Amino acid sequence: MTLELVPVVGLPEIRAGDDLAALLAGPLRSCGLRANDVVVVTQKVVSKAEGRVVPVDEGGVAAWIERETVRVVARRGDLVVVETRHGFVCANAGVDASNVDAGTVSLLPEDPDASAERLRDGLRDRLGVACGVLITDTFGRPWRTGVVNVAIGCAGIAAVVDLRGTPDDRGRVLEATIVALADELAAASGLVMGKAARVPAAVVRGLPPPPGPPGRARDLVRPPDEDLFRTGSIEP
Amino acid sequence: MTLELVPVVGLPEIRAGDDLAALLAGPLRSCGLRANDVVVVTQKVVSKAEGRVVPVDEGGVAAWIERETVRVVARRGDLVVVETRHGFVCANAGVDASNVDAGTVSLLPEDPDASAERLRDGLRDRLGVACGVLITDTFGRPWRTGVVNVAIGCAGIAAVVDLRGTPDDRGRVLEATIVALADELAAASGLVMGKAARVPAAVVRGLPPPPGPPGRARDLVRPPDEDLFRTGSIEP
Repeated sequence: MTLELVPVVGLPEIRAGDDLAALLAGPLRSCGLRANDVVVVTQKVVSKAEGRVVPVDEGGVAAWIERETVRVVARRGDLVVVETRHGFVCANAGVDASNVDAGTVSLLPEDPDASAERLRDGLRDRLGVACGVLITDTFGRPWRTGVVNVAIGCAGIAAVVDLRGTPDDRGRVLEATIVALADELAAASGLVMGKAARVPAAVVRGLPPPPGPPGRARDLVRPPDEDLFRTGSIEP
Repeated sequence: MTLELVPVVGLPEIRAGDDLAALLAGPLRSCGLRANDVVVVTQKVVSKAEGRVVPVDEGGVAAWIERETVRVVARRGDLVVVETRHGFVCANAGVDASNVDAGTVSLLPEDPDASAERLRDGLRDRLGVACGVLITDTFGRPWRTGVVNVAIGCAGIAAVVDLRGTPDDRGRVLEATIVALADELAAASGLVMGKAARVPAAVVRGLPPPPGPPGRARDLVRPPDEDLFRTGSIEP
């Protein structure tokens, strides 16, 4: 079955305190939002609505990165790769100066899974549709050049799909396959939500119902005891 | 503009020596293949066609992993994360027992970028359409649970898009943004090419022409001097 990625346009500039569900309801109604659709929203607009765009004070951006960090994973020169309080490992703790006013930076939402759940509830109240919701950010990766869009918040859809114990096309049992569904959806949405183009949301339509209960982006955080890359080459 | 992900079905079981372009031409003609489409094919069918499915001999799977490895990055128990000769860092050097006959394993193509180029040439000869071609595999990631589909071969389309120096929506210059376009396309295709479902290919339709020349999956390999994670916690 063909899957569609629909860019959502027509959102105004988002300000702190805005009701994102109310602002998205109109454009999503125009898209004909339906159950089994997944609404994907960039971290930037969620952070703006939640007041997580903050002024850079005398401590500079580094002070905000430090506040958002629970553990430094690797550092080289200006680049610092850290674990955030959510458990995500990313550059600069997700603190980002792009697409916000000069002299400010955006921080990741306090609890992106809760943000996704609130947005899902708000859309259901307004449109009568219980869709999936993802909140995404662009993360770099070790070993591979470039950033990809990943899920940092998730509601109403499985974040990971555990295929362990299911058969492959020869009937052989798949032993170690857990698919990061929410990250594949996030990356797909990245194709229609450019970094500079003002497309802060997308709808993924046509996904078969995932074989599993709804999950959380926290499900995507690898437990420490399974993490082979707790630290990198740290250079002072 | 809406982007479509179209699963490609109707391929027979692939055997060593098969002409993949010839086999794909029919199903892709049925899809109405056009320029600017990107054809995405799983590593598994490419490896099968190229005779890269091999018997497991007395050395076991480990012997094949060792042959495919140029550098061990991390090891724990049965899991080994290595650099392949292509420069990719992945579990088990891409050696995989799923979806192949018992007693055999599939290896990554010798040169997946060249495989993609040949497939592109073959499709152009048969269909008169110069599309993009990606070859993909599913890789795990540090810090995040689950596998995602990534590009290991690329022809006729940019693998990375360098946005450094372009303005964001405030006119502020983006300083460090390189987008891994081919990996976003690969992950998107993963949504319609299930691990067990016999969907070995997909078409991505509606992508705006990327602002840059065609590239190679090798462009996605992070140079060693930019790699903060050369080694992990190695346990004998």
